[in-house]
Amino acid sequence: MLGTMLYGPRDVRCEEVPEPKIVHPTDVVIRLSASCICGSDLWPFRGLNGVTLPMAMGHEYCGVVEEVGSAVTTVRPGQFVVGSFCISDNTCPHCRRGFQSSCVQREFMTGAQAPRARVPLADGTLIATEAPPPDDLIPSLLAVSDVLGTGWYAADAARVEPGSTVAVVGDGAVGLMGVLAAKQMGAERIIAMSRHKARQNLALEFGATDIVTERGDQGVDRVKALTDGVGADSVLECVGTKESMMQALECARPGAMVGYVGVPHGVELDGQWLFFLQRGLLGGPAPVRRFLPRLTDLVLQRKINPGKVFDLTLPLADVAEGYRAMDERRAIKVMLRV
Amino acid sequence: MLGTMLYGPRDVRCEEVPEPKIVHPTDVVIRLSASCICGSDLWPFRGLNGVTLPMAMGHEYCGVVEEVGSAVTTVRPGQFVVGSFCISDNTCPHCRRGFQSSCVQREFMTGAQAPRARVPLADGTLIATEAPPPDDLIPSLLAVSDVLGTGWYAADAARVEPGSTVAVVGDGAVGLMGVLAAKQMGAERIIAMSRHKARQNLALEFGATDIVTERGDQGVDRVKALTDGVGADSVLECVGTKESMMQALECARPGAMVGYVGVPHGVELDGQWLFFLQRGLLGGPAPVRRFLPRLTDLVLQRKINPGKVFDLTLPLADVAEGYRAMDERRAIKVMLRV
Repeated sequence: MLGTMLYGPRDVRCEEVPEPKIVHPTDVVIRLSASCICGSDLWPFRGLNGVTLPMAMGHEYCGVVEEVGSAVTTVRPGQFVVGSFCISDNTCPHCRRGFQSSCVQREFMTGAQAPRARVPLADGTLIATEAPPPDDLIPSLLAVSDVLGTGWYAADAARVEPGSTVAVVGDGAVGLMGVLAAKQMGAERIIAMSRHKARQNLALEFGATDIVTERGDQGVDRVKALTDGVGADSVLECVGTKESMMQALECARPGAMVGYVGVPHGVELDGQWLFFLQRGLLGGPAPVRRFLPRLTDLVLQRKINPGKVFDLTLPLADVAEGYRAMDERRAIKVMLRV
Repeated sequence: MLGTMLYGPRDVRCEEVPEPKIVHPTDVVIRLSASCICGSDLWPFRGLNGVTLPMAMGHEYCGVVEEVGSAVTTVRPGQFVVGSFCISDNTCPHCRRGFQSSCVQREFMTGAQAPRARVPLADGTLIATEAPPPDDLIPSLLAVSDVLGTGWYAADAARVEPGSTVAVVGDGAVGLMGVLAAKQMGAERIIAMSRHKARQNLALEFGATDIVTERGDQGVDRVKALTDGVGADSVLECVGTKESMMQALECARPGAMVGYVGVPHGVELDGQWLFFLQRGLLGGPAPVRRFLPRLTDLVLQRKINPGKVFDLTLPLADVAEGYRAMDERRAIKVMLRV
């Protein structure tokens, strides 16, 4: 079959790869309904990560189970499933506390920018829908597996509460999903920091009440001005650079939590500075498995439409163009027809 | 009157100082019932802080109001008051959200290692008891103003919950108060990290269920072993060194909060490391004012006895010996008769 391999900086190729197979009895093989490119795929694409190359790309997925390993008990061939980009057993102590992304058996999904994929630890990673979903919901169900789940976790870690004021740093797909999550959690005011018209519009559609186009100190000043000098009650950091982290921390009011889901690159925090700033921090890979049932329900009931975040759809054969479009910010998020 | 001045590293003196006076209409002057030396006083005593010298020492206090400024409305001469080491107006947005230690008018109390002291912003900083307390409760009421309030905040920031497992890093007075706080908040298991017999005993008396004498990686391994490999649900960091912070973060389970109240010295956190470790952080100067009513009540009702943390009492004239005793860990915390 065709699959997506990264060979080096900016060298991503759609090429013939081996068909996935059951390796462990806890695996399943699924046929993907669609796949997509993640903002985090851009880090190795840009050459910023020390990864082993070539690397099978793709960790967001939903689709129909084709084959199950002998130990799999909760899903069966023919069922439509959504899963987390973090593979987990969902039974270990960390999973039971809702941090499946720190599962003792944690793996990260790979090879999902392809028509078929192996999902390890299927019982702990996937949930099946009662019936096959209508085609028009596929983009939103695909979004659940990482980008929505990650934005949701940012809002959860930032402890968004009903009636609160939330600032979202980053207008990429995750930041936009953070806006959607904050809205669902009852935030009264959602300040999206964005300087791109199309992303601003999507943020407004997802529930943003204010747009701040300034960055850095000016962005912080603007958020302060919008909150009577106080700062936001919760801040979602959805980028991962030093600048975005500083902006997020300084936009928050004292005592507020910053939920950070952009993988930090070049971020160093001075302990004493953070102490006197008195902001809280919680981040990490999103425990999407915790949120899967609720988010899947919200999509199936058509209460949310996270699939709108895909503004470009390409055939798998054009995956390289998809990476370029996201890298150059010509597209927010690219869906792949597999 | 006599007061305590720091002139340079290890040069602290009890000497004649001017009597405190009302400077602003929101000030009061109190006669202290007792004073004490704080672990944080040891940082400048050891020459580790860039402070302006000479420096009037002492920020923990309780006592009787002698004089009130013309704008003070909530306390009057003759009343017994307890206050926070953080001066706050208790009306600004940060105060109203319970973070009085980030009050827009924040000051830090000074000059309280003396018989009398000026307390600024008295209405926002002090609470008065209904009646003068019995003498034997003075040490515990004094403890409320910083050391207990700070240990309590560590537990609050670490989100200690009923039935949870808590680890406390640091067996100084604040760490011991953290043990007491965790016990009051319903923690089922409280692991105190201490290698000093007297401090271990006090920790056990305050509610610790386990003592870990190992430090660093071995200490982390021991906490993991005591928690079936999981880590603690909440960790209180009560030291402020790089080693203690690393130990605290690694003792926590994924998703857990570390409440840190030791002023960090030489602590740098790598963003990506913290991200994948997936531990939360909240710290800073304790908003003691938030906890004052409850903690004062607990003392007056004799439900807690934080005053036990004072294991050496000296006359004010011997304050320099008090600093030395704490610096050399011959005393946990020194009370001063003023």
